[in-house]
Amino acid sequence: MRTMPDATRDEAVITALVAALGEKAVLTGAERPARNASDWSTLGPQPALAVVRPTTTEAVAAAMRICAAHGVPVVPQGGLTGLCGGARPLPGAVALSLERMTGIEAIDPASATMTVWAGTPLQVVQEAADAAGFLIPLDLGARGSCAIGGNASTNAGGNRVIRYGMTREMILGLEVVLPDGGIVTTLNRMIKNNAGYDLKHLFIGSEGTLGVITRLVLRLFPKPACTLAALCALPDYASVVGLLAAARRGLGPMLSAFEVMWPDYWETIAMTPGVRVPLPHGHAVYCLIEAQGTDETFDAPRFEAWLEAQAEAGLLADAVLSRSLADVKTFWGVRDACSEFPQVLGPHEPFDIGLPVAAMDEYVRACKAALSQRLPGAFALFYGHIGDGNLHIVAGLKGASPQPKDVIQEVVYGLVREFGGTVSAEHGIGLTKKPWLGHVRSEAEIALMRRLKAAMDPNGVLNPGKVV
Amino acid sequence: MRTMPDATRDEAVITALVAALGEKAVLTGAERPARNASDWSTLGPQPALAVVRPTTTEAVAAAMRICAAHGVPVVPQGGLTGLCGGARPLPGAVALSLERMTGIEAIDPASATMTVWAGTPLQVVQEAADAAGFLIPLDLGARGSCAIGGNASTNAGGNRVIRYGMTREMILGLEVVLPDGGIVTTLNRMIKNNAGYDLKHLFIGSEGTLGVITRLVLRLFPKPACTLAALCALPDYASVVGLLAAARRGLGPMLSAFEVMWPDYWETIAMTPGVRVPLPHGHAVYCLIEAQGTDETFDAPRFEAWLEAQAEAGLLADAVLSRSLADVKTFWGVRDACSEFPQVLGPHEPFDIGLPVAAMDEYVRACKAALSQRLPGAFALFYGHIGDGNLHIVAGLKGASPQPKDVIQEVVYGLVREFGGTVSAEHGIGLTKKPWLGHVRSEAEIALMRRLKAAMDPNGVLNPGKVV
Repeated sequence: MRTMPDATRDEAVITALVAALGEKAVLTGAERPARNASDWSTLGPQPALAVVRPTTTEAVAAAMRICAAHGVPVVPQGGLTGLCGGARPLPGAVALSLERMTGIEAIDPASATMTVWAGTPLQVVQEAADAAGFLIPLDLGARGSCAIGGNASTNAGGNRVIRYGMTREMILGLEVVLPDGGIVTTLNRMIKNNAGYDLKHLFIGSEGTLGVITRLVLRLFPKPACTLAALCALPDYASVVGLLAAARRGLGPMLSAFEVMWPDYWETIAMTPGVRVPLPHGHAVYCLIEAQGTDETFDAPRFEAWLEAQAEAGLLADAVLSRSLADVKTFWGVRDACSEFPQVLGPHEPFDIGLPVAAMDEYVRACKAALSQRLPGAFALFYGHIGDGNLHIVAGLKGASPQPKDVIQEVVYGLVREFGGTVSAEHGIGLTKKPWLGHVRSEAEIALMRRLKAAMDPNGVLNPGKVV
Repeated sequence: MRTMPDATRDEAVITALVAALGEKAVLTGAERPARNASDWSTLGPQPALAVVRPTTTEAVAAAMRICAAHGVPVVPQGGLTGLCGGARPLPGAVALSLERMTGIEAIDPASATMTVWAGTPLQVVQEAADAAGFLIPLDLGARGSCAIGGNASTNAGGNRVIRYGMTREMILGLEVVLPDGGIVTTLNRMIKNNAGYDLKHLFIGSEGTLGVITRLVLRLFPKPACTLAALCALPDYASVVGLLAAARRGLGPMLSAFEVMWPDYWETIAMTPGVRVPLPHGHAVYCLIEAQGTDETFDAPRFEAWLEAQAEAGLLADAVLSRSLADVKTFWGVRDACSEFPQVLGPHEPFDIGLPVAAMDEYVRACKAALSQRLPGAFALFYGHIGDGNLHIVAGLKGASPQPKDVIQEVVYGLVREFGGTVSAEHGIGLTKKPWLGHVRSEAEIALMRRLKAAMDPNGVLNPGKVV
């Protein structure tokens, strides 16, 4: 890094960026949009030195080279919907926003692939696939705002990972700008390609710390012809594990979601205005099971027969079966009502942890007990994508301001370490979870991550201090 | 690297290995098994300085440290069934064989995972999964000999990639010994884990050049309840593309194989002793379609209805539907008869290329024409996993000895570059395909691979000169 005085350096880098990219691409001072100062984490705004909005991969590379030469850090930005601060500017850094690099470049129906610019909102990608007769199975609440490049750099999850995998599994090729401004184009369209190292995996899920994703080749999937769902009440967690195994066996790859809700969650949802709860409360645990079929004539009776067999096997205390897409929507309404929690519960801490499936219920009990002990009167609701080992928690102390965040995190993440889980199943590490990374990754693992970071970005120019 | 005289260095490294691992683990001179001198490539034997067979991860790490300290290269070995020389010893190198690190360590039915030692043969892994009520979908002809660690380090493919993905998609966690002897243990059992960089992808598919895989966590899949298949003759390649799209839509995730055979292949098979060909020859192209279902009551009529609809749509010239598992086996016999080619065709060159699906037939025609022009009288048979973009070719000049290997490779790989394909879909690069890597990967990509190699193995101790 150079050791120019900051103000001189800042002026020099902005002058060089304007010269290379044009005035419209470099926003400074009052021109900097407020939205580029933060993401959806609770860290609050941190304005960037400048917001740079290139329109080509070459311009991204030029911006990287200029910032690297001046020793000015760069923070890549997509839709800014991340929850861990990964895209939030660092003091004195340039925010490199991909928001003007949007659009579908090509669809190849025979290979079932789509080539797309990284700044394209997920919903636009989904709609383009749909118009071409295909499905993009990645789906999140933030679909209208999040960018597909950000989904890739955070390896986004969502509700249907059990069937389609994480974002990583949906990507065949990438174009990336490296921290030194080099461009690596690997827009592979083949499912099988073992010609040398598979470089894309370096950049997927590394939260913009190893390279800036500019273009992607996505796999397209066939559209399901029908969607079937059931909302079930179960007598105990052992039945959940049994039902999951039975769903894997009996529904096979049709199984597209297996969501579990513990009773505190269910009871809170039942009190939420506008949510219809199709099963009474008082049961030990609740599941939402969804299957996507290719032909309703065969798949609807099969799903019903499968559900009846589970009832006969004693795995279900109660259940409702969908008879229409409206029913499916109502069932998902119960699961998605968690988005109303800020209104219903007031301030709280949200978590996105992972655990081996067999250990989930024991974890839930241990976590509730430890929270009650450390914070008498605390609430904690548990729900998640159990088929993928992903548990969400919201916990807090009603009326407390500020919330006892540190204690809650200590309890939740301390037990995650004990149970062999992960502190981030799908949201990433960014800045907010960095203190907890050592809870679930060994010193040797973190040293190897740092070795990769140093190899790719020896001067620490790209999103420094994030993840590792 | 040290610059000790070779003989002194060799003696010193062997003495140190024996002291650390014991005499039984270090085979030298006439004790070195012939099998460890080569793999299934055509490169011929190259005996190692010593064959080291550790039984623990710590012993692998000790061996790596000792070899690194003496500047003696290490070549990791699994089942030695690779086709590109990746596991073949280098002159003066130590062969580090995982053959005594075998066995299933744990099966977790709730998370549907298996933890296994890297030297375990694939077939043993398959049988253990089967006994526990699960499926390991990875399957290759070499199943009895290949090791699961080798499958991971080469990212093996196989026949059912269209449904289950490559080996990469079946791995949740790895334990790896680094070139400096460090141990990185990431035995993750969760499908979703975004806590930091996903390090396993560095080692999967890098053919033992970045680390030695010692243990793996594999995903287990539900066993299919029924298997259905059809062998079809089609009027042209456009119908193949249409049939693939219809299979993706209509069979959805049941679709477990989509294999295509061009007429030369079919006619050669028809002359192969012991192979029954259930359709007459003379058609433009042939497909084998397989679907794995969860309930024969629903899935058999569905498969038949789907096939009838394709016939009505004019996509099929002729077809036979399986009525039993024996029929399915007969159909696969046609596809697998390529293993008899050495007997039927005599000497020839085999290829494992990848292409965008839409370009396949044009490639086949261009390749046949170019071969005929360069080598009048040459034969070339085309077949492969077309649903995955993977085309196999066997080509040669009957009676020629030696075969005009260089000309054939120039034609095949030259056109692969023109058509935007890959020189290795599933077999890897190893040594034999290294000269062609630059045909399908850019200078920037290869430079990045080298940067990774240098970061992980700065002294070039681990499998040097392979891949990059």
